[in-house]
Formats: sequence, C-alpha cells, structure tokens
Amino acid sequence: MPFDHIPPLLRDSSSKIILLVMDGLGGLPVEPGGPTELEAAETPVMDQLALEGVLGQITPIRTGITPGSGPAHLALFGYDPIEYEIGRGVLESVGVGLEVGLGDIAARGNFCTLSEDGNIVDRRAGRVSSEEAKPLVDRLKAVEVPGVATEVHHVKEYRFAVVMRGENLNPEILDTDPQRTGVPPLPATAQTAAAEPTAVLFNQWISKAKQVLSDQPKANGLTLRGFSTDPRLPTFKDSFGLKAAAISVYPMYRGVASLVGMQVIDFEGEAPEDEFSTLKVAWDDYDFFFIHIKKTDSKGEDGDFVGKAKIIEGVDQALPQLLDLQPDVLMITGDHSTPARMKTHSWHPVPFLLSAPATARPDDQRSFGERACGHGGLGDFPSMNTLPLALAHAGRLEKFGA
Amino acid sequence: MPFDHIPPLLRDSSSKIILLVMDGLGGLPVEPGGPTELEAAETPVMDQLALEGVLGQITPIRTGITPGSGPAHLALFGYDPIEYEIGRGVLESVGVGLEVGLGDIAARGNFCTLSEDGNIVDRRAGRVSSEEAKPLVDRLKAVEVPGVATEVHHVKEYRFAVVMRGENLNPEILDTDPQRTGVPPLPATAQTAAAEPTAVLFNQWISKAKQVLSDQPKANGLTLRGFSTDPRLPTFKDSFGLKAAAISVYPMYRGVASLVGMQVIDFEGEAPEDEFSTLKVAWDDYDFFFIHIKKTDSKGEDGDFVGKAKIIEGVDQALPQLLDLQPDVLMITGDHSTPARMKTHSWHPVPFLLSAPATARPDDQRSFGERACGHGGLGDFPSMNTLPLALAHAGRLEKFGA
Repeated sequence: MPFDHIPPLLRDSSSKIILLVMDGLGGLPVEPGGPTELEAAETPVMDQLALEGVLGQITPIRTGITPGSGPAHLALFGYDPIEYEIGRGVLESVGVGLEVGLGDIAARGNFCTLSEDGNIVDRRAGRVSSEEAKPLVDRLKAVEVPGVATEVHHVKEYRFAVVMRGENLNPEILDTDPQRTGVPPLPATAQTAAAEPTAVLFNQWISKAKQVLSDQPKANGLTLRGFSTDPRLPTFKDSFGLKAAAISVYPMYRGVASLVGMQVIDFEGEAPEDEFSTLKVAWDDYDFFFIHIKKTDSKGEDGDFVGKAKIIEGVDQALPQLLDLQPDVLMITGDHSTPARMKTHSWHPVPFLLSAPATARPDDQRSFGERACGHGGLGDFPSMNTLPLALAHAGRLEKFGA
Repeated sequence: MPFDHIPPLLRDSSSKIILLVMDGLGGLPVEPGGPTELEAAETPVMDQLALEGVLGQITPIRTGITPGSGPAHLALFGYDPIEYEIGRGVLESVGVGLEVGLGDIAARGNFCTLSEDGNIVDRRAGRVSSEEAKPLVDRLKAVEVPGVATEVHHVKEYRFAVVMRGENLNPEILDTDPQRTGVPPLPATAQTAAAEPTAVLFNQWISKAKQVLSDQPKANGLTLRGFSTDPRLPTFKDSFGLKAAAISVYPMYRGVASLVGMQVIDFEGEAPEDEFSTLKVAWDDYDFFFIHIKKTDSKGEDGDFVGKAKIIEGVDQALPQLLDLQPDVLMITGDHSTPARMKTHSWHPVPFLLSAPATARPDDQRSFGERACGHGGLGDFPSMNTLPLALAHAGRLEKFGA
C-alpha cells in the first residue's frame, strides 16, 4: 500500500473528487521579473477558486529531480514513484495503448542499421521517419512465435513497443542494445534461470523479425530494451477506497491510470470541453476523476510561452462545466513543470490549487500562479500527499486513534 | 528511540523549555474571508511573541489525517504516532487516571442490554446516564478474580475502563463486542497461546460482573474492547535528556504524559492561571514543562467560535506569569485543529509559535494566527519535530559531526 495508515481509516462517502492535471503546468518567466506562463494567462475562474480555496506547491519525485511522465503521474495518484516503478517497456507500451496484463512481457524496440557482417552501424536506423517506420512495424506484427502471442505498436520514428503474452513468462532479461556501434546486437539474455524460456522466445521473435526487415536499407535490424511486466501496483480502490475514472486524450496517461486500476473512459474530441463533458456523463458512476490536459506540456516543450498560456486560458474558460457539478474537492495542478524557457520537463515544484468549499482553510492568495502558490497555506509538499489531502477534504477518512 | 541521532548529541544544560498546548487550537473562518478563532481572539501578548519569535504550521500525524488526542500528543512529545501506538484500552484507562504499569492489561468496557436469552438488545445499554452508571461501576469494583487484581473506573455514560494486574498477563485478546445486536457478547478469546490464561481470567471476571448486574433493566451486561498494555515507550529522559513535568486538568493528557515518563504534577483549580502558578512552583525542579489547556477543544467541539476565542484570550492574559519566569524556549501550539465550524477534530495543520529570545530567527510575522503561521519562517513541519527544535534553541544539542 502507498500509505499503510490510510486503508484502515477509509469510510464510505458519496463525495466526489476531481484531479485536473495540466501536464507540465509549472513554468518560468522569460524576462527578469516577468510572469510565468500560468501567471500571464487570464484565469478569472481559477483565480476565484484560489481566493476561496488554498494553494501550495508540490514536488513530484524528490527535490531537484526532473520527472518523466510515468513517475510524475504515479506520484499524483498517491504512489511514491521511487518505491513503485513502472518498467520502461511497460510505460512505452501503455503509452501507445497496448495492454500489459499480469504476466505479459513488454519491451521498447529500436530499429537499427546493420552492416553485412551483422554489426550495428546506426543505433537509430538513421532516425528513420515515422512514415517509413510504420509499414515496417506492420511487418513485425505478422511475426509469429509458437506458443505465445505478440503485439507490436509503432511509437515514433525508429521506436516501437512489443508485448509478448503466454504462460510463465518472466521479464528478467537484459537489453539487446549493446549501446555502441561496430558490434552486433546482443541476444536476449536471461538474468535468472526462470527467465531463460522467455529469452529463447524473444530470440526466436528477433530472428524472424530480422528476416522480414532484411530488404531494408536503413532499418534492417532491431534492438529491444526495458523488458518488464505489469508492476502489480496496489489498486487505487484498495489504497484509497475510490472508484476512479480516467479521462485523457493521450494513451500514455490512460495507460498509467489503468495500471493503478482506474477505469479509462473513451470519448470523442480533444478539447478540454470534450473531456469535461465526458466527466459530466460519468459523474454518478465514480468517486474520483482524473482529467489530463496534454497541450500545456506540448507547448512548453515547443518553447511556446504564449501558446502555453493560451491553453491554460482555454481550460479556465471550460472550468465552469466542472464547477457546475459541485465537486466536494477539486484539485488543479500539473504532473511536473515544463517551462517554455527550458523547452523540456524540469524539477521545479508545481503550482497546486485545492478547492474544497466546506473545509478549505483560506490563505489570502488571490490568483493561481507560481508566486502565489509559493505563499500558499498548504506550503510545499510531495505530490503523493495530494491524495490523502483530497480524502480528508472529501470526508472520507476516520480519525486516527482516540 | 524516536530520533536515534538525538541522544548522542545531548548535553547538560540548565535551560528551561515550556510546551503550552491549547487543545484543538487550529480553526477555520466561519464566513468567507473572515478570521479563524485564533485570529479573532485579542492576543496582544502572543502577538508580541510572534513578532519577536518565529511561526510555523505543524502536521500532527501525516497529511490529511485527523488525529485522536493520544497520537496527537505523542507527536508533540517527539514520538512518531504511526510508529509508537498506545492501545485503546490503555488510552481509555490513563484517560480516567488509572495507572497501566508494565504487564498490566487494560480494556475499554461498555454496558449493554441483554435479552432473557442472553442476546445483545442495545450495545450501549440505552445510553444509560453517568448518574445511573456510576453505582454500577462501583459494583464492578467489588468483583474479584483469584490470582489477579482488577481496577475499574467509570468514563462516561455507558463507558468504563478496567485494568487487570498480575503475573504473565498478555493483551493479545479479541474484543468481546460482536459489533451487532441479536447475538450474545463473545467470550474473551486469546489470539495466541500465550494469552490464553489471561483470556480465562477476563472471562471469569466477565461472568462475575454479569451476576452483579443481573437485576438491572438496561445495563445488565457488558462488553470489553481494546485489550492492551503499557506500550513501553522510550522515556522522554532517554530520548531527549529532559526531566519533564506535565500540568493538565484532564486525566487523559496526564496519562499520555506519564506513559513517556513525565512527572505529573497535582494541583487545585482549572484556570490557566492555576496551571501557570503550578508551573512556577515546580520551576526549579524540571527542564521541560508540558501544560495542557483543554477548553479550546471543548468549545471547538461545541461549535462555539466566540467561546473558543475567549478561552484563547484567557490564556493570553495569563501568559505574563509564564514569561516572568524567562523560559529559554516557549512553544505555543495545539495538538490538532478543532474548527468550531466543523465541531470536531480535523486534519488541518496547527499554528505554532516559537519564542526563544536568544536564538529565534524572526520572520516579520506580527500576530499569532493561521494565516501568519502559513507564512512563518519555520514553514510546515511534522509535530514530532518540535522537540528537536526546542532542544536546539535551548542549547541542549552538540554539533553533529566535525
């Protein structure tokens, strides 16, 4: 359990909690003394919530650590990302919508270029384009190994994901990527006796895959990395007593949510309005709603300060849809910071807003932004503590001790 | 030890530390933008201490967890309440002034109503009044079991506490309360072979107790819960090098203090002035003084915002008595929050004031209240860290490492 002291305290409630995640929300000013993206954005609705509610700053992993999306979301879901690890192969696979069930083995794949004598010439197959790579992934989909089923999915450019399903599979297998050129790919090598049959199966698959790629000028070989399986995370229901739904445009976030046992809800559209109206339809069926907004992060990675602020403004404009549902607890935050100035994820703390009309202790902050959050009444705390906080404000925890 | 790194650093000192606990101190505004109870109270003395000293917010147990009084006080005494647990029976017993020594077994008792065929009709004996219950508890005091001594004390209405003393007693016994009506009370059942003789003794006691209650219309039966023994906490003296005194009107807090080895001081009266003048008399004999003010919590539980503020004002008016003693460290805080708006304990952080004229680093906060504490220089920290902080400001800790 993420928090051993929580399950014994859980009590039934019909209260509703929303966790609204704007990916990469935290930012930086682009000029000295200037506003961050969130501070620059016109967000009258969030500012009102900030005034009535309470602010803080959250640290996704540990001080100074820049998170990947997987661990950053695990933390927001209440799981210490240092204790609970999702294997790279699993993350890549769920990221493109592949299911990784109990006992399935997932790996990340790279196309590479091999010389005639079988040595690696280019570890990324000359950064083959997605257009070139997709038909090759289709060829890999047709590769069959007796006794197991495999599923392959393109990720981006030279990258793909593969999942193997069968009996008694074991992920304790070393990467086949030698991490340098001039040598052949390594065979899949078991680290334990229990994993040997699985390594044999992957080597069979690799051998057949090489055959179907043999006519290719650039992508005539492949390497596999990050062999891993379902991390068997304690479920969200067992850990926090919440029946949870996940609403996200991107498969990656749906995947991480499904790994903790959230129900992923399908819907049409890509705008915040589409996600919020999906939530409205599901309102009666769940206790907890995770909504993911991707484009704040994408704009941050593009270095597009104004674009990121505009995405935030769009969320603010759609927010009344959520407020009309009168959630007992609404948390608005990000999984990590992605300052447009840095064009990448960063380790900076993430602005956090808690709206809980019945029980929030106000802190006199009047807008939702990094500076205000740095003075917020919730102080600085780890992302994984947001869940216990939400449970408390939703009236879902009994007293500890007498 | 609560903090393994502390005992090797302890050094002798004649410095004095006072921990003044206003129970349930933390509050909430009753109207948007309004003050909390502490902010509404006129507290010129504490405000001056806030200006000269430094503020912060403390979390009693963990984020979002609403504490009971026992664990909340353990935390203030420097013991992680998740690691160090006081059994329910022990807490109830010390709460009414019963001693629970090493090897003694304590349990909580409820009177219940039994039908003619011995099934429970009412688990709380029709919520029999304290006036009705007290003579029945006197009857239980007379119940004797060969080989052991028992002590019984009334708690409130249908509740009482019982402590059994003898050789080789063991608390691993399941509750006799079946938690429902229509069935008889369960026998005391040992969870381990080592506890079987103790279960037999309790069953003898229960059987005789039933006989002395048999003429009663409502309280003709009883159940026992929370069998437990002295938690054998590391002593306050070993943990923090402090000779400590506890001054409290209510037995519960005297009991928890005695479980960590504090000396409980008897006195007459109920007002803060009575407690403070008791401290003055004991001033030369101890290093550390825990003073407990109960009525802030009681008024909070009554939903009496103004009453709670008045109690705080009364403490403020009496405070010069303590200041005249020139303590090296004075900490003013609560064990948890009890907002009058919620009429119950809550998980909100607790305002904390540190006065240490020689060494406090001021933070420009000018009054003692939740908002000011949210901006205090000490930030947010766990309640159990107050003790190391006090030791430092009292000059009682050597440097760590060279």
